[in-house]
Amino acid sequence: MSGCDGARVAWAYLSRVAEAPCGPLIGLIDAVGAEAAADMVRRREFPEEFVDVLEATAARADRVRAEADLEHIGHLGGRLVTPDDEEWPEYRFGELALKNQTPQMTHEDEWRELRPVALWVIGHGRLDDLLERSASMVGTRAPSSYGERVADQFAGDLSAQGFTIVSGGAYGIDGAAHRAALAAGGPTLAFVAGGLDRPYPAGHAGLFRRIGEEGAVVSEYPPGTVPGRHRFLNRNRLVGIATRGVLVVEAGFRSGTRNTATWAKHRAIPVCAVPGPITAATSVTCHQLIRDGATLVTRCEEVVEAVGTIGEIAPEIDAPVRATDDLDGPALRVHDALPARSALPASEIAAIAGLPGRAVIGQLALLESKGLVTRDGALWRLTR
Amino acid sequence: MSGCDGARVAWAYLSRVAEAPCGPLIGLIDAVGAEAAADMVRRREFPEEFVDVLEATAARADRVRAEADLEHIGHLGGRLVTPDDEEWPEYRFGELALKNQTPQMTHEDEWRELRPVALWVIGHGRLDDLLERSASMVGTRAPSSYGERVADQFAGDLSAQGFTIVSGGAYGIDGAAHRAALAAGGPTLAFVAGGLDRPYPAGHAGLFRRIGEEGAVVSEYPPGTVPGRHRFLNRNRLVGIATRGVLVVEAGFRSGTRNTATWAKHRAIPVCAVPGPITAATSVTCHQLIRDGATLVTRCEEVVEAVGTIGEIAPEIDAPVRATDDLDGPALRVHDALPARSALPASEIAAIAGLPGRAVIGQLALLESKGLVTRDGALWRLTR
Repeated sequence: MSGCDGARVAWAYLSRVAEAPCGPLIGLIDAVGAEAAADMVRRREFPEEFVDVLEATAARADRVRAEADLEHIGHLGGRLVTPDDEEWPEYRFGELALKNQTPQMTHEDEWRELRPVALWVIGHGRLDDLLERSASMVGTRAPSSYGERVADQFAGDLSAQGFTIVSGGAYGIDGAAHRAALAAGGPTLAFVAGGLDRPYPAGHAGLFRRIGEEGAVVSEYPPGTVPGRHRFLNRNRLVGIATRGVLVVEAGFRSGTRNTATWAKHRAIPVCAVPGPITAATSVTCHQLIRDGATLVTRCEEVVEAVGTIGEIAPEIDAPVRATDDLDGPALRVHDALPARSALPASEIAAIAGLPGRAVIGQLALLESKGLVTRDGALWRLTR
Repeated sequence: MSGCDGARVAWAYLSRVAEAPCGPLIGLIDAVGAEAAADMVRRREFPEEFVDVLEATAARADRVRAEADLEHIGHLGGRLVTPDDEEWPEYRFGELALKNQTPQMTHEDEWRELRPVALWVIGHGRLDDLLERSASMVGTRAPSSYGERVADQFAGDLSAQGFTIVSGGAYGIDGAAHRAALAAGGPTLAFVAGGLDRPYPAGHAGLFRRIGEEGAVVSEYPPGTVPGRHRFLNRNRLVGIATRGVLVVEAGFRSGTRNTATWAKHRAIPVCAVPGPITAATSVTCHQLIRDGATLVTRCEEVVEAVGTIGEIAPEIDAPVRATDDLDGPALRVHDALPARSALPASEIAAIAGLPGRAVIGQLALLESKGLVTRDGALWRLTR
């Protein structure tokens, strides 16, 4: 892939010229194409209906670094993926997908704000393939050992079921999810909040390298961009809308995961949450999300049921079976009427069970055929 | 109150003559009254539409112990409470309440099966008063220390909010709930599965005595009845339908609490469940109930919101407040554009934030008025 054709340079320029998300700019690009849009932004001349783009792009219109950015990402072993590319996940970010699946967003700029202009990527696989069967796993940067264990379990199990584990590359639950996916040999993808040359947190530089080798590290920000709080929120938006579903593992009271879950909800993407002790601060947001309608999940199969394709239903938990399990009311009453050790005549059993004699005889015969009671002359007893 | 008027003797007789629950017998009593119904059962002669009562009562029709039963309960310091008594909780067990509030039960005998014939009671307060503002708390007989702690907390808090704590008097969660209510000085009520002269479990004899002193011990079975498995299930039905709501604290895979919750559901009574670690067997049924529609609760206020009267809404959890909490998008972008230690000119801040210069000046003034940024000549920095 050449990093320097004219359209790609235009996309790279547009990716830097406005702070994401920028609905008006996306609207302009949709209307006139990337190259014409870049030209208008540079010249500060817009058709009347796109005049909002002027304010959104004025501060950086003169920063022409697009070719340098493309060169830079090339040196990092990465690429810029744009809506023109085959691997662009159209089914997640495409106009049709966003328009139809966010019915509560009635103003076009609203659903356009969900979409990144383009994505800076380090990784081998195609983005659309990676995100096709994928789940986002998010949570607190300071999990309990319970949370770490649960993140590890779900990520490993979902990987084994063919899911790409998507997260934000942060410390805590994010890191545990990425690592478990790598350990399971499954692909994993990290959306980050700054340029790909600025791994954040720095302590995860090695982890990002491995994610880039086995999956992808992805940013909507060009190289050199420093992470900032609003960029973390925007990153959360991509984690929330780019996959089939969001699983919140552990999250304390003030948690960015609530933000991620809200984006998913806008997009009608299922949100699952793992419960924990009500005495643990680390599960507060999980419990609030469940109270607000998220699906409580206790095992991988339940996540797959919620986020997978139709027909992936979680199997029932296997129950230990007891001999008396399938007895109906009268049979159970006769069974319970028998004392633990001694034997009784049918008439006495009838009085204790409160059933007519005929019915009791029938039930005793049934219980005998199941090996639950034993006849002893005119008396009946429980089989030891 | 006299224990030996004719109607009361008839109720006592009817309370023993059929194994509860017995919809057809309740139907007969509703139609002809207790005394005439008792007479028909004794003579084994029924109007055609009540012929089902014959089979249900034939085995015990000749057991005429009613006066002895009433004498016996009197010796125990108790009484028989019947639908003729003012204290009968008509709003829970009355024909109108049951008929209107169990719309999915279309056959009359079905909702009649919910109702006890009469109730044997040891306790001072009126039953209707005790059950008016009440909540059932149920759970496993073998709780974790987490479950015991949570039961204690909820029962104590609900008591303080004026709720009668209703449970089944069993070991584990039931006992913890009763004890916490007693410790909080609130009333508590135990529905038991056998005669009131046969405390079960025997280890709770002392607890039942205290419950009888401060609240009530209640059974639909006459004195002398031994507990049996179907009687525990029937007891669960009363715990499930006699109160304003059911709270499941901790319950393992095979748990009678599921049965209690199902009865509540039939009766359109709210079911709440406390989550726990997904790694704990003791929370399996709680999680399944929540997945099936029960309300996840983490504190007393949420239970009150679910089961209390209209308008009892749980207050929001208090959040620690940060200075930047109420900043909107542009203000937050400007704030985040400022580096941790150094100062920048407004033009540079504008480029980093991706906002036009004018807008940045406005936001900086706003942030300065909130004490978040400080001007230093032509430069701006974050306030330490």
